[in-house]
Amino acid sequence: MSECCCQKECLPTPTYSKIACASSSSVIRELLKLANKPEVISFAGGLPSPEGFPTAEILAATNAVMATIPTRALQYSCTEGEIELRKLIADRETQQGVPTSPEEVQIVSGSQQALDLLARVFIDPGSKILVESPTYLGALQAFNLCEPVCHELPTDEQGLNPELIGEECRGARYAYVMPTFQNPTGRTLNEERRRKLCEKAREYDFWLIEDDPYGELWYHNQPAKSLRHWAPERTIRLGTMSKILAPGFRLGYIVGPRHVIDVFTRMKQAVDLHTSSFTQHITAQVFNDGLLTTHLPKVRAIYKRQAEAMLQALEDYLPKHPEISWTHPEGGMFIWLNLPKGVDGAELMKEALKQDNPVAFVPGSAFYANTPELNHARLSFVTVSPERIRQGVESIAKALKKFL
Amino acid sequence: MSECCCQKECLPTPTYSKIACASSSSVIRELLKLANKPEVISFAGGLPSPEGFPTAEILAATNAVMATIPTRALQYSCTEGEIELRKLIADRETQQGVPTSPEEVQIVSGSQQALDLLARVFIDPGSKILVESPTYLGALQAFNLCEPVCHELPTDEQGLNPELIGEECRGARYAYVMPTFQNPTGRTLNEERRRKLCEKAREYDFWLIEDDPYGELWYHNQPAKSLRHWAPERTIRLGTMSKILAPGFRLGYIVGPRHVIDVFTRMKQAVDLHTSSFTQHITAQVFNDGLLTTHLPKVRAIYKRQAEAMLQALEDYLPKHPEISWTHPEGGMFIWLNLPKGVDGAELMKEALKQDNPVAFVPGSAFYANTPELNHARLSFVTVSPERIRQGVESIAKALKKFL
Repeated sequence: MSECCCQKECLPTPTYSKIACASSSSVIRELLKLANKPEVISFAGGLPSPEGFPTAEILAATNAVMATIPTRALQYSCTEGEIELRKLIADRETQQGVPTSPEEVQIVSGSQQALDLLARVFIDPGSKILVESPTYLGALQAFNLCEPVCHELPTDEQGLNPELIGEECRGARYAYVMPTFQNPTGRTLNEERRRKLCEKAREYDFWLIEDDPYGELWYHNQPAKSLRHWAPERTIRLGTMSKILAPGFRLGYIVGPRHVIDVFTRMKQAVDLHTSSFTQHITAQVFNDGLLTTHLPKVRAIYKRQAEAMLQALEDYLPKHPEISWTHPEGGMFIWLNLPKGVDGAELMKEALKQDNPVAFVPGSAFYANTPELNHARLSFVTVSPERIRQGVESIAKALKKFL
Repeated sequence: MSECCCQKECLPTPTYSKIACASSSSVIRELLKLANKPEVISFAGGLPSPEGFPTAEILAATNAVMATIPTRALQYSCTEGEIELRKLIADRETQQGVPTSPEEVQIVSGSQQALDLLARVFIDPGSKILVESPTYLGALQAFNLCEPVCHELPTDEQGLNPELIGEECRGARYAYVMPTFQNPTGRTLNEERRRKLCEKAREYDFWLIEDDPYGELWYHNQPAKSLRHWAPERTIRLGTMSKILAPGFRLGYIVGPRHVIDVFTRMKQAVDLHTSSFTQHITAQVFNDGLLTTHLPKVRAIYKRQAEAMLQALEDYLPKHPEISWTHPEGGMFIWLNLPKGVDGAELMKEALKQDNPVAFVPGSAFYANTPELNHARLSFVTVSPERIRQGVESIAKALKKFL
C-alpha cells in the first residue's frame, strides 16, 4: 500500500461498526440539504423563531454568574447536573401536580441526548419497543443505533389510540410517546386517552417515555395533565430548554423515579461526563430572574400567529380535494399535511423546490419506524414570517396541482 | 402488583439493557465518593486549577458574541460544529506541521464524547482494540459500552513499547494511545517510538487514536511531533478545551481524514444533534482575542510549580525502598506512583483517608483493561496548592509505612 503513488487509492479505510455502516446517508438527508439554500422557504426545520430568543436576559444572567460563581460555571461538575437547575425543574414538575425532588432529575445535552441515553439504557439488539405511527424522526435515529424491534402503535385524528394496545405490546421495554403537540403531526392526546394509555402500560407492563418538548408552547389553553401525572411510577419524562430558551444551549432533562435516574446518570458519565456547567448556571440564573412569566407568553404569541398564518394559507391556496387535509394544532411547531393516496411527499417536495418561491418541508415517510406512508408532509411554521409562509404554501399548492 | 400496599415493593423496575446492567457501581467509584468531603486533600480528580480560568476573557468574549451574532450563538447549528472554531483548530494543526482543513475537524461535547463516538463508530461486540497498559479509565468506560475485546499493549518507563507490537495486533479496529503526558502515568513517547508505532500501525493495518488532552501543558519544552504528523492517513486525533480554557464548556474535537470525520458526524447527529453553539462561539472569540499566547504560559507555570512541589514532597517524605518509585512527568497533570508488590493502592487509600490530613487518589487498578496491577496509584497535583500537596504526600507516606 505504501508503494502506491495514487493518493486516492492510498487512503486506508477503517473497518466501521455495523451501526456506523447502517447510518449512511439517506434520501431524506440528501433532499434536506437542498433546503439550506437562502432562497428556499424552509418549512423543514424545527428551528425556533430567533425573534423569541431572550438575548438581553441571557447576557445579563451570564454577567451575574461570572460575577458570583465563575469557578463553578467553568469547572468540571457532577454528572447529574447542577443542583440549582435540577431544583428549578423539580419545582416546576411539582407545581404541575407531580411532587418531584432534584434527585429525580438528570440534566442532559439536549433532548436528543435523552433519546440516545434512553436507547442505551433500555435496548438490547432485538428488544421490542413501541412507537407512535408516525413518530419523531430523531427518536428513531437514536433508537435504531441500539437495534430494537419497533412495534408501530396506530394513531387517528386524536393521536395514539390506546384502545388498540393489546397482548402484542406485552414485554416491550417502553412505549415512546409525544402526547402534546406531537412531532410530526401536531396532535394532542386528550385526558381520557392519556389515562387509558397509563392503564394499558400497567396492564401490559411496559414503561412510558413521555417526550414533551412543546408542552409550554400552547396557543389558547394549557394541555391536559402529563402522563407522568397518571403513572409516575413507570413514566420517564423528557423536557428541553431548546424551545423555551435557546437551542444553542443544548440543555434538556430527564425526570423519573430515582432508581431509574441513577442508571441514566451512570450511562451519561461514560458518554460525556456531564453537560456544560456554564450553560446550566446561566439557565438557572435566567429562570430565577423570572424569565418564564415574561418570556413564554411572547413565544406563544409568535407561534400562534404563525400557525394561524399557515392554516389560513392552506385554506386559501390548497386545492379542494376529499383526500387533502391537515391537522389543526393547538400548540407547538408543526402541521401534518395529508395528501391523496399515490402522491409521494418526497416527489411533491422536488416539485415544490422548482417553484418561483421554492419551498422545502420534510416528506412524511421519514417519520415511520417500519412501514412508511408516503402521502404526508410535515410543515413547520416557526422559522418563517407570516408573509413568507403564504408564499411557501402557495408554492406547495402549485406543485401539488401537478399530481392531481 | 397494584394491590400491594408496600411502597417499596410496588415500585416497578424496568428491564435494562445488558450494558446498563454492566455499568453498575464499582469499588473505585464508591471509594472516590469519600474524596468529595471538604477536609480531604484530593489527588484524585483531574480538575484543572481554577487559578488558571480566564474568567475576564470569557466574559468579554461572551459580550462580544452577544453583541454581534446572538442568533447564531443561540440557534440550532450544524452537527460538524461552528465553522469559526473548526477553522481555528485546523489552523493550529496546520501550524504544528500537518496541513488540515476545517472539514477534517468535528467538534464534540468534551473529549469523553469523542471516546464514546469512537467506540460506536468502530466497535462491534467482540471487535479487537488495542489499549496501553495502563490506560485512561474514562476511555475504558466508554469503549466497554460497545463490548470490545481489549488487547493490552505493554509499557515501560518510556511508555508504550512499539517493538512489542506483533501479529496478535493485526485486525484490531484501532490502537488507543495517549503519547504525551499520559493519563495515568504522565509518561511521554519519544519521537523514535512514535515513528515506530506508526510503522507498526501500517504493517498490521490498524488505526491510531491519538488522545492528546495535555499536549499544551508542557513545562520546559514542546513535546515531540504528533502521531498524526507521522501517519496522517490513519490517525484520528482527539483534543479538548477543558485543560487550556475551561472544562465547564464541554468542548473537544476530533481531527482526521475527511471520509472518517463524515462518519463521526453522522453518528453524532443521532447522539446529540450538535455541541452548544453558544460555548463554541465564545471559545472561537476567546481564541481570536489571542488567549493562547497570553493565557497558556500562565497555566503551564502553575502546573509546573505544582508538579515540582509534588516531586519534592515525594522525595522528602516517601520511605526509601527499592520497589517504591514514581514517574517524573515533563508536562500534564499526573504522577504515577509504583508501590512494592503486595501493596494494594486501594488499601493504601483507605489508610490514607484515615490520616490527620486525609488524602485521596485513584488506585492504579482502575486503569487496566483486563489484568489490573494493584500496586500503583495515580496522583494528580493540579487542583491542590503546593502547601496542601506536601501535607497530602506526607499522609500517603505515613499510611504507606503501615504496609512495609
